[in-house]
Amino acid sequence: MKIINDVKILIVGLGLIGGSYAQALTDLGYEVGAITRSQSSIDYAIEKGLIAHGTTEVSREYVQSFDIVVFALYPKVFVEWLEKYQGYFKPGALLTDVTGVKGAIVYQIQDMLRPDVEFVAAHPMAGREVYGVQNADKSIFRNANYIVTPTKKNTREAIEECKSLGKVLGFKTIAELSPEEHDEMIGFLSQLTHCIAVSLMTCKDSEHLVDYTGDSFRDLTRIAKINEDMWCELFLMNKKELLAQMDLFIDKFTELKSSIESSDTERIKSIMRTSTKRREFFDKK
Amino acid sequence: MKIINDVKILIVGLGLIGGSYAQALTDLGYEVGAITRSQSSIDYAIEKGLIAHGTTEVSREYVQSFDIVVFALYPKVFVEWLEKYQGYFKPGALLTDVTGVKGAIVYQIQDMLRPDVEFVAAHPMAGREVYGVQNADKSIFRNANYIVTPTKKNTREAIEECKSLGKVLGFKTIAELSPEEHDEMIGFLSQLTHCIAVSLMTCKDSEHLVDYTGDSFRDLTRIAKINEDMWCELFLMNKKELLAQMDLFIDKFTELKSSIESSDTERIKSIMRTSTKRREFFDKK
Repeated sequence: MKIINDVKILIVGLGLIGGSYAQALTDLGYEVGAITRSQSSIDYAIEKGLIAHGTTEVSREYVQSFDIVVFALYPKVFVEWLEKYQGYFKPGALLTDVTGVKGAIVYQIQDMLRPDVEFVAAHPMAGREVYGVQNADKSIFRNANYIVTPTKKNTREAIEECKSLGKVLGFKTIAELSPEEHDEMIGFLSQLTHCIAVSLMTCKDSEHLVDYTGDSFRDLTRIAKINEDMWCELFLMNKKELLAQMDLFIDKFTELKSSIESSDTERIKSIMRTSTKRREFFDKK
Repeated sequence: MKIINDVKILIVGLGLIGGSYAQALTDLGYEVGAITRSQSSIDYAIEKGLIAHGTTEVSREYVQSFDIVVFALYPKVFVEWLEKYQGYFKPGALLTDVTGVKGAIVYQIQDMLRPDVEFVAAHPMAGREVYGVQNADKSIFRNANYIVTPTKKNTREAIEECKSLGKVLGFKTIAELSPEEHDEMIGFLSQLTHCIAVSLMTCKDSEHLVDYTGDSFRDLTRIAKINEDMWCELFLMNKKELLAQMDLFIDKFTELKSSIESSDTERIKSIMRTSTKRREFFDKK
């Protein structure tokens, strides 16, 4: 990244992820400011030393003082924000985001954006089941993956700048995917898994289940505690891909079910061997 | 439990669970012996102080020296063992097990068993994705649940003895269920979750997935690394219940899928709210 003293970074949206970005970047020596809806989040973040300053008002004077702007908003609010305030950016500013869907927003944003600023989309694959800047914790980036999703409109320089942002934040792996590859991958790895967890958790009343459960049900439903506004928006903005991944899962689940139904021992064991072998890639890393 | 000095405990099957039982009971001061197939497991367990003695040969002299016998075998091998060697038990011996299915074995065993010994079935809801006595670790029982599944043939005294075994092993919750309730519960909490994890893990080739994944996919597939011989046997011995639980899950998953398909925001959010509320019971405990 550019020399620390020269770079001022603005976080728009001071929740769990925005707050964790702020903490990591402030600790590295950057001057970090924030714009967010609630004054109490600003107050908390200043008190805890996550940001140097912040405001609930979007003003030209404040926005144009930053070289890098990170958007940590829900997708629709993010697009609306840009429509309203893109005139305020400093010429040459680099914009990036943390949004969990890409195809539905990246092209739209790049098409409408001023030609003298650049937006490189990114998705930090980190999170927790808790929300708000009060839970900000830069350690969630450690051992996590960071995906940059550039398009043909992006310059190599800005892409590299965005990737080095991921590096300094502490991510373990920095990957580059097209928005479409990202959406397929995330439809499978993240959205499908949330659909599975939610469906499993709603199968039965659970008050008594906790006395009988082992770790497997706990693990599979950790993410069933879910922010319904954010995830509903993410699901619907990636609907086509998510539905395709859900169908793929139903196929595989139904195949296993049929082999149990017909007591096809060899088929069941063969599926389990594939599963065991594929899971091993995750233990090596 | 009875006075420690008076009680000798035999573990039949020295794998992860049998070995962890042995460790916990030896550390409490009981004299613990073992019968298992491989001499190297016996040697390891003696060297590490998990057992006082052990053998790969099943002899009347050895078996009849024990007051409590814990079977930590696969279900079919367990039943075969009893058919062959039940004549060896000390009169009045208490038998228990760790088997993951109950209806398919408990009645059969109690029907064929000598009248002067008693079998109280139990299921410790603990495990790991690794196997063998080399991975034995009594700490897996801490915070875990222990389910006893008595029938009308059991005496209250033996049931309580078996429950207090769960207590001294260090389990957090000791519950009592009928074999049928157990099989429904475990079909849902444990077997269905393994089916989901295995199906999810077999959806796609995984070598490259690990660079993009967040924690959710990791959590949902931890148990996809699976012992195919044991789990295939458990699935087929609880087939009717497992298939019913798989159908229930498919119903809920399909319901969520339909509401995404029709962009029914209110329905999606309502499912997510139910899921969030039900998951909270697991965080309180």
